[in-house]
Amino acid sequence: MNHLQDKAIELAKTLVDLLQRQGKRLVLAESCTAGRVSAALSSIPGVSQWYCGSFVVYRNDSKSKWLGIPTSVLEDADLGPVSQRTSNLLAEAALAKTPEADFAVTVTGDVGPGAPRATDGAIFMAFASRHSNICHELHEQLINPPPSRLTDLDARIRRLDEATQRVLAFAIRQLEEVF
Amino acid sequence: MNHLQDKAIELAKTLVDLLQRQGKRLVLAESCTAGRVSAALSSIPGVSQWYCGSFVVYRNDSKSKWLGIPTSVLEDADLGPVSQRTSNLLAEAALAKTPEADFAVTVTGDVGPGAPRATDGAIFMAFASRHSNICHELHEQLINPPPSRLTDLDARIRRLDEATQRVLAFAIRQLEEVF
Repeated sequence: MNHLQDKAIELAKTLVDLLQRQGKRLVLAESCTAGRVSAALSSIPGVSQWYCGSFVVYRNDSKSKWLGIPTSVLEDADLGPVSQRTSNLLAEAALAKTPEADFAVTVTGDVGPGAPRATDGAIFMAFASRHSNICHELHEQLINPPPSRLTDLDARIRRLDEATQRVLAFAIRQLEEVF
Repeated sequence: MNHLQDKAIELAKTLVDLLQRQGKRLVLAESCTAGRVSAALSSIPGVSQWYCGSFVVYRNDSKSKWLGIPTSVLEDADLGPVSQRTSNLLAEAALAKTPEADFAVTVTGDVGPGAPRATDGAIFMAFASRHSNICHELHEQLINPPPSRLTDLDARIRRLDEATQRVLAFAIRQLEEVF
């Protein structure tokens, strides 16, 4: 396992500890990270008590068909799938579809290669709690891709790993603030 | 990246090449691998044209609420969540929920630690095509866990990586046979 993945598993362990201490369950909806946040969480033995699952909604069609994200949002030139609005809607919908979950954490973004400059490396995260009407949101810009000597594949993986860590760190901060 | 993950990405590349050559789209439903098959696929640049997403149904509740797997199956002593029947039903349901997908690949299993002896290391895979009524199935036994000098965490990750590779290899074989 490389350093970035070790770090994701360390963060996942902290997150699962927080859920366990609070006796709460988490559901995810992942677009750009495509299951990597889920994969990190699932590494932790015993996690199935606190972790419900992840809607990996990788295309617009799965966002709309699985979680009811309106095509008017997904096709809007100022919003679209890579937007805070989409991330927030994913969080609401994931909670609605998962009665046993207390919290939803979501991410959408564009890790490239070949992303439009406006969204290249942008990720939009949301955290929703069933017990309040607040949806916390966070827009971050990935530091990677690293030097252009990397192949598209390696640069992409580097960004995916970074996005995964940022989502886990965001979820930890939210759970620390909730209680 | 470690050797097992390099291997998963190599397999993912082969799978995406097959989908691209056939002009077909894939949807996943993952229980035990919890997004790792999805994570491998998403590493490949351009995959979003051929890959719809993954239902990471990590608990019984998400299997029933998201994909309609009957609780009568999930609570049946001879079937349950870790069974071929559940994997086949996940494949049918994933296709039904994803109109743009041509194929569904699913996996359920128990990677431990602390799994009942009967299901410890067992994984059940299914492959369904929208264009035929056949659902191909495969039950395999994981070779890992490796020597007991590994921690529960490391043994679990080793098994998760092995399961991920087996699912990708299964999907490749099915796609090679379809055409």
